Amino acid sequence: MRARYKKVVGLILVSGLAVTLFHTWSHSTSSEVDIQPRLGTPLKELLQRIHRDNISDSQVDGYHIKEDVACRLGQNACVCVADKETFHLPMSDWFFPRVWAHNLDLTFLQSHPDPEGVKSHRAQEYNSFKKRSYSPADVLIVAEANSPLQYPTQGVEVRPLKTIIIPGSASLGTFDVAATVDKVSIEGEGQKHIVLSSPLLSALNRQLQFVTYTNTVFHPKTADTVQFATEGYQSFFIIKVGHKPVPTLYNSGYQQEYNISAIVTIATKTFLRYDKLKDLIDSIRQYYPTVTIVIADDNEHPQPVTGPHIEHYIMPFGKGWFAGRNLAVSQVTTKYVLWVDDDFIFSTNTKLEKMVDILERTTLDLVGGAVREVTGYTATYRHTISVEDGGKEGDCLHIRNGYHHIIKGFPSCVVADAVINFFMGRTEKVQQVGFNPRLAHRGHLEFFIDALGSLHIGSCSNIIVNHASKIHLPWSKTESQKKYEKFRYSLSPDDNKIHTEVFYFKNRFKCMTSH
Amino acid sequence: MRARYKKVVGLILVSGLAVTLFHTWSHSTSSEVDIQPRLGTPLKELLQRIHRDNISDSQVDGYHIKEDVACRLGQNACVCVADKETFHLPMSDWFFPRVWAHNLDLTFLQSHPDPEGVKSHRAQEYNSFKKRSYSPADVLIVAEANSPLQYPTQGVEVRPLKTIIIPGSASLGTFDVAATVDKVSIEGEGQKHIVLSSPLLSALNRQLQFVTYTNTVFHPKTADTVQFATEGYQSFFIIKVGHKPVPTLYNSGYQQEYNISAIVTIATKTFLRYDKLKDLIDSIRQYYPTVTIVIADDNEHPQPVTGPHIEHYIMPFGKGWFAGRNLAVSQVTTKYVLWVDDDFIFSTNTKLEKMVDILERTTLDLVGGAVREVTGYTATYRHTISVEDGGKEGDCLHIRNGYHHIIKGFPSCVVADAVINFFMGRTEKVQQVGFNPRLAHRGHLEFFIDALGSLHIGSCSNIIVNHASKIHLPWSKTESQKKYEKFRYSLSPDDNKIHTEVFYFKNRFKCMTSH
Repeated sequence: MRARYKKVVGLILVSGLAVTLFHTWSHSTSSEVDIQPRLGTPLKELLQRIHRDNISDSQVDGYHIKEDVACRLGQNACVCVADKETFHLPMSDWFFPRVWAHNLDLTFLQSHPDPEGVKSHRAQEYNSFKKRSYSPADVLIVAEANSPLQYPTQGVEVRPLKTIIIPGSASLGTFDVAATVDKVSIEGEGQKHIVLSSPLLSALNRQLQFVTYTNTVFHPKTADTVQFATEGYQSFFIIKVGHKPVPTLYNSGYQQEYNISAIVTIATKTFLRYDKLKDLIDSIRQYYPTVTIVIADDNEHPQPVTGPHIEHYIMPFGKGWFAGRNLAVSQVTTKYVLWVDDDFIFSTNTKLEKMVDILERTTLDLVGGAVREVTGYTATYRHTISVEDGGKEGDCLHIRNGYHHIIKGFPSCVVADAVINFFMGRTEKVQQVGFNPRLAHRGHLEFFIDALGSLHIGSCSNIIVNHASKIHLPWSKTESQKKYEKFRYSLSPDDNKIHTEVFYFKNRFKCMTSH
Repeated sequence: MRARYKKVVGLILVSGLAVTLFHTWSHSTSSEVDIQPRLGTPLKELLQRIHRDNISDSQVDGYHIKEDVACRLGQNACVCVADKETFHLPMSDWFFPRVWAHNLDLTFLQSHPDPEGVKSHRAQEYNSFKKRSYSPADVLIVAEANSPLQYPTQGVEVRPLKTIIIPGSASLGTFDVAATVDKVSIEGEGQKHIVLSSPLLSALNRQLQFVTYTNTVFHPKTADTVQFATEGYQSFFIIKVGHKPVPTLYNSGYQQEYNISAIVTIATKTFLRYDKLKDLIDSIRQYYPTVTIVIADDNEHPQPVTGPHIEHYIMPFGKGWFAGRNLAVSQVTTKYVLWVDDDFIFSTNTKLEKMVDILERTTLDLVGGAVREVTGYTATYRHTISVEDGGKEGDCLHIRNGYHHIIKGFPSCVVADAVINFFMGRTEKVQQVGFNPRLAHRGHLEFFIDALGSLHIGSCSNIIVNHASKIHLPWSKTESQKKYEKFRYSLSPDDNKIHTEVFYFKNRFKCMTSH
């Protein structure tokens, strides 16, 4: 009954005054379309003004800030200070390049011949990035109180140049009607404005159910803002315009148990360590004799690496670890890809089935395992990452040891934002994020920063691979500071420069904090 | 004034009855989180029921279907018939593998040892794909008429585990308050239900502006549904939970003219045609002496390809064109990548600056050029692609010659869904879509199907490269049918089988229509 009551109230207004619908995305009706990037429309400002009015309205004295809650609200200018409360792990620096140079602004700009030039170049590039990624569907819209109108507020979508019935709405629509109802007069069929009026409520009500919207201009990944007005009230809603997403499904058979060779490819990159690589391959073959192994090789004098189910790719000399990772992953055709370093060794604890199982049974896109040193020390390298608004100087990147939650049903597994360099992922997801081929020696963290917000990442401590080397790994507790420094300072200044540039320019950070 | 009036009406109800806010995403308060894929919550059904009620309500007779409009409404079961109205282009078959086998269901399943098994496997894989990509932010929500409550309907977003002020809302929020107001009593601070009540409207109003929402469970790319109730009315809105996207910016300098060598890399793949490759490189060097050229090579007996700014990658023998494309693109570090075949020849008409210019000045992600045959015939291969719902048997793929619109300010350029195999794209976008490495000989169309909905694609007829060969290309008008057939039937049955499988299984099509 309540539903009916509302309907009638709504329609008295409507029939009294007629309904006007129009959309605000003005463009020529010719077949020519303007695809210059644009940030918003007059409507956007209108929405924001309405919204501001709502806030500013109402004056009362006597209120008391709750510090504990208020302090949790983000400001739009993060400050570049290391987190005092965090404790320090030995070696953890290693995974956070230039952690000793938190202020990327300073570090990058002071070494740059033209600081002002590069700053404005970055601002310019960021601006066009924002324009390209802008969507009206992200604009804040507020539903007015006591609107006589009933309309969808989200979930309306139309395929490019296709037609839909405005769903679930007894009072909204655009452009045309799929049927005409007796005693209803319609103006503007097939146009950007349509006016419906009738002396008969029920007839108007029925007519409103036949209103259709047709998308006429194809502008991918955008949305059309429909404005709906009757006297004293205006409402907005968004129709998303886009192709139906085409799925990427893998035909990997449907056995009872997971057939690892059919659904997993092992990818690695080698340099100066053919002996280690051979040990890795031999250890894999003990447990997975037919799984495909893709090897990216940037040695100066490559040696043949042959054998069944082995694919050997030869790169220009010294292209680096992450160009190699990107190459290897680009060649994978199975549903999942496992990343291993060339000095890892499979053991009875290296159960790939467990990784497949959690990826199959959860929404995780990528799951990391654990790496055991010869010393017996085992690391999972679980970290959380967050990005804080920093205004026009750039944002702040915060990295902390730890994880978000334990995963229900998988007591050894947690949700995190960054994991160790022994992980299995959905191939198409890992390919989408990719590894930055500019990074020669370090780039593990960079991958997880690029994955932020697009990959759902887990870490399981009960899937373990052994590490043959005792050098070059951060979690090796027996590692001497001497060796570590030796490695660290063996990096060229250019190499460090690239990392600072990636953080400052590519990702637009001004600051980085970590343990 | 109207704003104030609404506010008061809204708040009379509110203060009379108190406001209850709670969210419907129930979970344990422990640090353990269930990330099994789930499609929707009880709320989803509730929303849909409300929505159905709105439609079913109202009974009138006497209405007349408008055939011309009604026929434009999509059904949920596309039929597999070729479009009668389209005309036939010679050779266009070539670009649409197995165009002579429209019905993929039949073609794939009849050749499969276990049709039922593979069908259910596809259904299962599609189901988990949908579960992984489900978001409450896509659920249809309808704003009830005459609600006394004012609330945001879209655009509210919170970072994982962070806190926000419920924006623009005089009457909505969850969990806690950033400040307390005199004469307002609050129950449930810091909990999933909060009740605010006050004898004083203005005080309650002020209090409502301090309501905060804190995200407590991190579940990437999802959204929290907040339900808001006062007597007789309930409203819903969505808070998106997600990391702030990290941009990918390229530091390619900021000259007045475009510095092609700094912002473009040329990528190609070679097989059995080192002579052609040499001609291509020589022609490029006439116009762009320092642009980087990345070459993927899957010859059985690779020959060295050297020279400044040349990167030569050697693949396992016969990996195929699209594994090669994916490899080459994976190594690019510049802002843009240009794809060329190894038998193309640059001329004075091959102005890469024009491609860069349109990519810089529009929202296009990729722009195709034109290829001129030795006969003088020039082709742009412009097509539109659309996907139509086909229910549980799979969807329909429709390919047509033509384009969507001419691009304002670029009279030689149009918006299309597929272009010729001479194109420039934003490197990170082309890498995200990728080329299917399973496809050995053909896969051009497949790339644009995978790009559907994620890449914004254009085509310009005034940027022209020459084609050295007279064989193996579809638009070569002098091509004899004999040579064409020879090429076509040289493809192995396995190769054709893979294409059918890609369309049927990976992309889940049951049908394909084209010119």
